[in-house]
Amino acid sequence: MNRIDGRKPDQIRKTTITPGFQSFAEGSALIEMGNTKVICSASVEERVPPWMRGQGKGWVTAEYAMLPRSTLTRTARESAGRVKGRHQEIQRLIGRCLRPIVDMPGLGERMVVVDCDVLQADGGTRTAAVTGAYVALYQAFHRLVKNGALKRIPLRDSVAAISVGIVGNDLLLDLCYEEDFRADADFNIAMTGSGNLVEIQASAEGDPFAPEQVGEAITLAHKGITDLMAIQTQALNAIRSQ
Amino acid sequence: MNRIDGRKPDQIRKTTITPGFQSFAEGSALIEMGNTKVICSASVEERVPPWMRGQGKGWVTAEYAMLPRSTLTRTARESAGRVKGRHQEIQRLIGRCLRPIVDMPGLGERMVVVDCDVLQADGGTRTAAVTGAYVALYQAFHRLVKNGALKRIPLRDSVAAISVGIVGNDLLLDLCYEEDFRADADFNIAMTGSGNLVEIQASAEGDPFAPEQVGEAITLAHKGITDLMAIQTQALNAIRSQ
Amino acid sequence: MNRIDGRKPDQIRKTTITPGFQSFAEGSALIEMGNTKVICSASVEERVPPWMRGQGKGWVTAEYAMLPRSTLTRTARESAGRVKGRHQEIQRLIGRCLRPIVDMPGLGERMVVVDCDVLQADGGTRTAAVTGAYVALYQAFHRLVKNGALKRIPLRDSVAAISVGIVGNDLLLDLCYEEDFRADADFNIAMTGSGNLVEIQASAEGDPFAPEQVGEAITLAHKGITDLMAIQTQALNAIRSQ
Amino acid sequence: MNRIDGRKPDQIRKTTITPGFQSFAEGSALIEMGNTKVICSASVEERVPPWMRGQGKGWVTAEYAMLPRSTLTRTARESAGRVKGRHQEIQRLIGRCLRPIVDMPGLGERMVVVDCDVLQADGGTRTAAVTGAYVALYQAFHRLVKNGALKRIPLRDSVAAISVGIVGNDLLLDLCYEEDFRADADFNIAMTGSGNLVEIQASAEGDPFAPEQVGEAITLAHKGITDLMAIQTQALNAIRSQ
Amino acid sequence: MNRIDGRKPDQIRKTTITPGFQSFAEGSALIEMGNTKVICSASVEERVPPWMRGQGKGWVTAEYAMLPRSTLTRTARESAGRVKGRHQEIQRLIGRCLRPIVDMPGLGERMVVVDCDVLQADGGTRTAAVTGAYVALYQAFHRLVKNGALKRIPLRDSVAAISVGIVGNDLLLDLCYEEDFRADADFNIAMTGSGNLVEIQASAEGDPFAPEQVGEAITLAHKGITDLMAIQTQALNAIRSQ
Amino acid sequence: MNRIDGRKPDQIRKTTITPGFQSFAEGSALIEMGNTKVICSASVEERVPPWMRGQGKGWVTAEYAMLPRSTLTRTARESAGRVKGRHQEIQRLIGRCLRPIVDMPGLGERMVVVDCDVLQADGGTRTAAVTGAYVALYQAFHRLVKNGALKRIPLRDSVAAISVGIVGNDLLLDLCYEEDFRADADFNIAMTGSGNLVEIQASAEGDPFAPEQVGEAITLAHKGITDLMAIQTQALNAIRSQ
Repeated sequence: MNRIDGRKPDQIRKTTITPGFQSFAEGSALIEMGNTKVICSASVEERVPPWMRGQGKGWVTAEYAMLPRSTLTRTARESAGRVKGRHQEIQRLIGRCLRPIVDMPGLGERMVVVDCDVLQADGGTRTAAVTGAYVALYQAFHRLVKNGALKRIPLRDSVAAISVGIVGNDLLLDLCYEEDFRADADFNIAMTGSGNLVEIQASAEGDPFAPEQVGEAITLAHKGITDLMAIQTQALNAIRSQ
Repeated sequence: MNRIDGRKPDQIRKTTITPGFQSFAEGSALIEMGNTKVICSASVEERVPPWMRGQGKGWVTAEYAMLPRSTLTRTARESAGRVKGRHQEIQRLIGRCLRPIVDMPGLGERMVVVDCDVLQADGGTRTAAVTGAYVALYQAFHRLVKNGALKRIPLRDSVAAISVGIVGNDLLLDLCYEEDFRADADFNIAMTGSGNLVEIQASAEGDPFAPEQVGEAITLAHKGITDLMAIQTQALNAIRSQ
Repeated sequence: MNRIDGRKPDQIRKTTITPGFQSFAEGSALIEMGNTKVICSASVEERVPPWMRGQGKGWVTAEYAMLPRSTLTRTARESAGRVKGRHQEIQRLIGRCLRPIVDMPGLGERMVVVDCDVLQADGGTRTAAVTGAYVALYQAFHRLVKNGALKRIPLRDSVAAISVGIVGNDLLLDLCYEEDFRADADFNIAMTGSGNLVEIQASAEGDPFAPEQVGEAITLAHKGITDLMAIQTQALNAIRSQ
Repeated sequence: MNRIDGRKPDQIRKTTITPGFQSFAEGSALIEMGNTKVICSASVEERVPPWMRGQGKGWVTAEYAMLPRSTLTRTARESAGRVKGRHQEIQRLIGRCLRPIVDMPGLGERMVVVDCDVLQADGGTRTAAVTGAYVALYQAFHRLVKNGALKRIPLRDSVAAISVGIVGNDLLLDLCYEEDFRADADFNIAMTGSGNLVEIQASAEGDPFAPEQVGEAITLAHKGITDLMAIQTQALNAIRSQ
Repeated sequence: MNRIDGRKPDQIRKTTITPGFQSFAEGSALIEMGNTKVICSASVEERVPPWMRGQGKGWVTAEYAMLPRSTLTRTARESAGRVKGRHQEIQRLIGRCLRPIVDMPGLGERMVVVDCDVLQADGGTRTAAVTGAYVALYQAFHRLVKNGALKRIPLRDSVAAISVGIVGNDLLLDLCYEEDFRADADFNIAMTGSGNLVEIQASAEGDPFAPEQVGEAITLAHKGITDLMAIQTQALNAIRSQ
Repeated sequence: MNRIDGRKPDQIRKTTITPGFQSFAEGSALIEMGNTKVICSASVEERVPPWMRGQGKGWVTAEYAMLPRSTLTRTARESAGRVKGRHQEIQRLIGRCLRPIVDMPGLGERMVVVDCDVLQADGGTRTAAVTGAYVALYQAFHRLVKNGALKRIPLRDSVAAISVGIVGNDLLLDLCYEEDFRADADFNIAMTGSGNLVEIQASAEGDPFAPEQVGEAITLAHKGITDLMAIQTQALNAIRSQ
C-alpha cells in the first residue's frame, strides 16, 4: 500500500524536537512531526492541588489547545466559549501518560502544569504532545536539580507516544490528517522506555477491528516509539550540555 | 485473589436491564450492575447536525452526567458550571461505541441523542452506560419501525462494554469502585456481537502494564461481554413482545 | 366536570414514596404522583455557608433539575448552559418550604443540600419535590440521631405541598400536565402538619381570579395535603423500622 | 404597633411615578416609593419569540436587575457572572403580572421587553417594578396608537402590586427593607383595576401563617393597590396629554 | 461648519452634575451632558485586591455598563452573556484616568469601586463617566474625612475628560452620537486640574489624521475640560456645604 | 540615560518578521522584537458579519491572546474562563489600526480574521501584533490576487506601530517589559506609510504628562515606525517572490 507522502507503513514522519523554545518556561520544547507542530511547556509551581496537600508528593497535569489557524480552516478560539470536549479528552490523556513515569515523592509538593499548544495540526497532535511534553518535563526537572531544589531528576522512566491506523487490512504508523481521516480504526499508544504501556486509546471510526489486530498495532507502535525515543535522547543531551 | 464482594475474577456483578424506564422517551433502559445504576434514554430528532445535512445519513450522539448524590459524597451539579472533563471524555466514548453498529443510511436524516444519567456510581458507569444505551437505542429504533417511519431496524450489530482491571499480576472483570481505586491499570473495552472491538481505553494509573496483558484483558472482557449480551437479549425480547 | 384521568375534583393522583432510593445519600426518596416522578436526596455537610458561621445554627438549601428526557420532547441539559430561570424559581421555593419546619439551632452548624431531580414530568413536579424532600430530610436527620451526632430529630413540624387549578369556575386538585396547560390560574400551596401555610404561589396564566377563590383553593389544598401526609407517615415509619 | 417611619399599618409610602424617564424608550417610567426607586422601560420589537410565530399574537416579557450600588453595601454586577436566582424569580413574576392584562391578539406579532432596573432598593422593589412597568407599557402602547401602528391600546385591564407583611399578629402594608427583614411572612400581591388577582406570592420566612390571614392580607393589599392606581392614573393622564 | 444642535465648534453641551444621586453610596453623582446621562457611584471597601495587601496603599477601579434601553434600540443585557469588549475597554480607561490623581498611600489599604451606569447614551459616555466619577470619588473621600477615617482628602489633583472629533478639516468639541458617527477620527482626552494629561485615546475610524492635528485637539479639549471643571467645582461646593 | 539592554533612546529592538509561519493560513507572520514574539495569521472568510451584508464591502477584525507560558510565570488559559479585559482592549486596538488602511469595497464581501497569539511577552506585544498583522494581511491579499479572486491588493496604505515611554524627562522608544514597568507614561502609536496617524493610546500610569510631550512622542514613534516599515518591506518582497 502506497502512502500519501511516500513513507513505508512502519516509518514515522520527519521529526525534530527543539528544547527551550519558550525561554521563560522552566522547561519547553517544540516538536515537529511532518507538518504537525506542537509547543510544549512545563511550568513548575511550588504548590499542589488542595486535595493533595500534606502528602509529600507532587502532581503533573496537562492542558491542550490549538491556535485558531493551526487547522486548514480557522477554528473559533475557546476563549469565546468552553473548552471543547475533544480537548478535554486529549489533555486528560496527556496527563495520564506523564504521571506514571514521574517519581511523585521525589518531586515533593510541587505541581507541574504542562501546556501543549498546537501551532499546526496535520494528524497525531495528541501523541506528538506526549512525546514533546516528556522533553519539556525533563528540562524543568533538570533545572530544579541545577538550582539545588532537587537532588536528582524525579523520573522513573521515559515516555513517548505514536498513532497507528488500520486502513482495510493494512496497519500504518504515524498517520497524517489525510490518512487518519480515511482509517477504519486508529490507535494512540504511549509506552515507556522499558517497553511497557501507559495508555492505549483505540477507536473504530469505521469498521470494528479484530482482537488480533491489537497486538499487531502495539508491535508497530513500539517500533515508532523506539525511533522517537532516539530523537528525545538527542534533545535531552542538548539540555544537559547547556 | 479474593474479591471484595466474593466474586470470581471472571465474574460480572449481578446485572439487570429494565427497558422503558422513562416512559416519555422513544427508547430507554435502566441498567443496574451491582450498586451502579444508570438511566439511558434515546431521543429521536427529525434532523441531523448542520454539517451532515443532505447526505441522507443519520447520526448518534451521547451525553453523560451524574446526579449530585450518585456518589459517596455529594458532587456539585454541572449546571452550576461547565461540563467536567471526565464527563466530556465519557460521553465521547459512548458515542464512538454506538456509531459503528448503526446503519446510518438506514436511519436516514435523523439524529438520536442518547442520555446516560448515573443514579448511583460504584465503578464501571461508562461501560454500563454503553451496554444500557444499546437497549435504549434498540427500543427507539423498534418504535420507528412500528410507527412505519422505518422499514427495518437500522443496526448492523450489537454492542456492550465492560471494564477489566490489573491488580498486581491478576486480571479482574467488572471492577467495583473499591477495586478500581486500587488497580494498577484499567481497561474499558467495547465489543460487538460478532466479537470485534469498537473501543479500547486502557490506562496505567499505577504501574505501566506489559504488552502481553492487553490480549489477556481482551479475552477476559469478551467473557463478560458475552454474559452482558445475554441480558441485553432478554431486554430486547421484552421490547419486541410489548 | 370530568377530569382527563377520571379523578374527582378533590382527588390526588396515585402517590407512592420510596425512602432510601439513592443508597449513598444520608436521606433520599423517590416520589411518584401519577406519571410525575422525582428523586429527592438530602446530603448533610458539616459546614454552613460563610455568612452563617459562628451562629450555632444550621441551614437547608435545595436544587432542582430535570433529566433531559423527563419531558415529552427532549430538553437540553443545563450543563450546556445556565440554570434555567424556572428551575431557579422552583429550587428557591423548595428551600423556603423546608426551612420554616426545621429547628435550625437543633441542627447545629450543618448544611443540608436537598437535590430534587425530575425523572418524569407530568405536572406538579415542584410540589411533589417538596413532599418527597421532607421524607429525604427526615431520613437524613434520623441517621444523624442514630449515629449519635444529634440527640433528637431537629424538626418543628412536617410539610407537604400540592397544586390546585382554576378551570373556568371549577377548582381541581393536583393537576396533571394536560390540566395545568388548560387552567386559567394555578396555585402551589405548602402547609405544615399543624395546618398552617408556609408558601402560596398563585398565578393567573389566563383570566385573573377572584379574591374569594383563594380561600377555596387553600381548603382544597388542605384536603390533598392531608392525604399526602398519610403517605409520608408510612414512609417515615419504614425509615424508623429499618 | 408603631412603624419605623411613622406610617399607619395600612398606609403606603410616598409614591411618585415619572413617565418618559428614559427618552429613547417607547415607554418608560421612574417609580419612587419612599427610598425604593426603579426605572422601568418598555421596548417594542416587531417580532415574537420563535415558538410564537404565525399565531397573530404578541408577547410581553420582563427583565429585572439592580445597579451595583442600589444596596446598602455594593452588590457585584451580574455581568461578572450569572443572573442571580432571586432576579430570575422576580423577572418571571413581573412578566406573569403583565401578560394577563394585555390583549395579545390586539398587540399583533410584536414583543414588548420590559426592563426594570433598581436604582435604590429599600424593600418592595418587585412590586414597585410591576406598578411602574404598567405605566411604561401604557406609554409604549400609546405611542403605537399615535403612530398608527395600532388602532387602540391593547390592554384588557390595569395592574399594580404591593407587599404585605405579617409581623407577629399585625399586618403591615408596603414594607420597607427594615420591616421586611423582621417580618414572619410576606405577601407580594398583584391585582387588576377590576379587583381580581393575577399573582400571590406568600412565604413564611419565620413562623408559618394561618389560612385566615391570607384573606386579611389580600384585603389590605387591595387598599394599597387602590392608592397606587390613583397615582398610575395621573401618570397616564400626563402621557395622554403630551 | 454648522453643528446639528447649533453649538459652536468649541462649545460643550449643557452639563449638570447632581452629587449624591444614589443615597446609599459613599459618593455618587448623576452627570448629564445634553442627552447623555450617566450615574456614577463610588463604593469604599476596607480591603485591597490580594496582590496589593500589606503595601499601605489604596486602589481605585471602575466598572462601566449601560441600561438596556439607554440606546436608541434596546441592547441585550450583559448578564445574559459576557462583558462586552467595548465596555471592558471603557472601564479600564476610567480606572486609568482616576488612579493618577489619587494619593494612594493617603487613602490607605482601601479600595474604591467606581460604577458608571449609562442611563442614556448620546455620545461621549466614557468621558462623561470620568468627569462624573471624579465628583463621586470626591464625595466618598469627603465622607471618609468627615467620619474621621482619614485626616485629609487623598487627592493629588482633579480630573475631567472630553471628546474631540475631526470631521474633514474641522475639529469639534464634545461630539453627540450623530456627530461621532460621522467623524473621521475621534479623541478622548482626560486632563488634570493642573493642565497635564492622564489619557489620550485617538482613533481614525475613517481617514488617518495628521500629527499636527493632535496638538490642536489637545488645545480644544483643554478648553472644554476647563468648562467642565467649573461645573465640577460647583458640585464639590455643594458636597462640602452639606 | 542608559537603557537596560544598552540601546539608544531612539533605537528599536532587533526585529525580524518571518512571513508564512503558519502554513495553513492564507497569510501569516512571526514577528520577533527582542524577546517579544507574536504569531499573526490572517484567515479569509467568504462572508461578512450579518450587519454588513449586502453593502459590497469587506471587514477586518482581530483577536489577541497569550500562550500560558509566554509570561515569566504561567498565566491561566482564557479557555478556562472569559476573555480578559486587557486582551479585549488590545484586540479592539489591533482591529482599529488595520481597518483604515484596507480598501473595504476593493476587498468585497469578505471578512479577514487576524489572530495575534503571543509566544513570548517582553513588552510591546500589542504594537508588535499590529506590525506583524500587516504582513499577514498583505500575504492573504496577495494570495487572493494570485488565485484570481481579486484584481489588485485592497490596501490603501501600510501600517506599523510602536511604543514610546516617558521615564522622568526622557522619552524612550520601544520599551521592553522592565522599562514599561518603570515608565511614568506610555504611548502606543500606529502610523501609516504616508505618515498619518491611525491610533494613539497614551496613559499616565505614574505622573501625568505635559501636552508638549505628546508631539515629541509622536516624532520619536515616527522614527521607530520608519525602521519597522523597512523590515516589513523585506517581508513583503519575500512574499511577492515566492
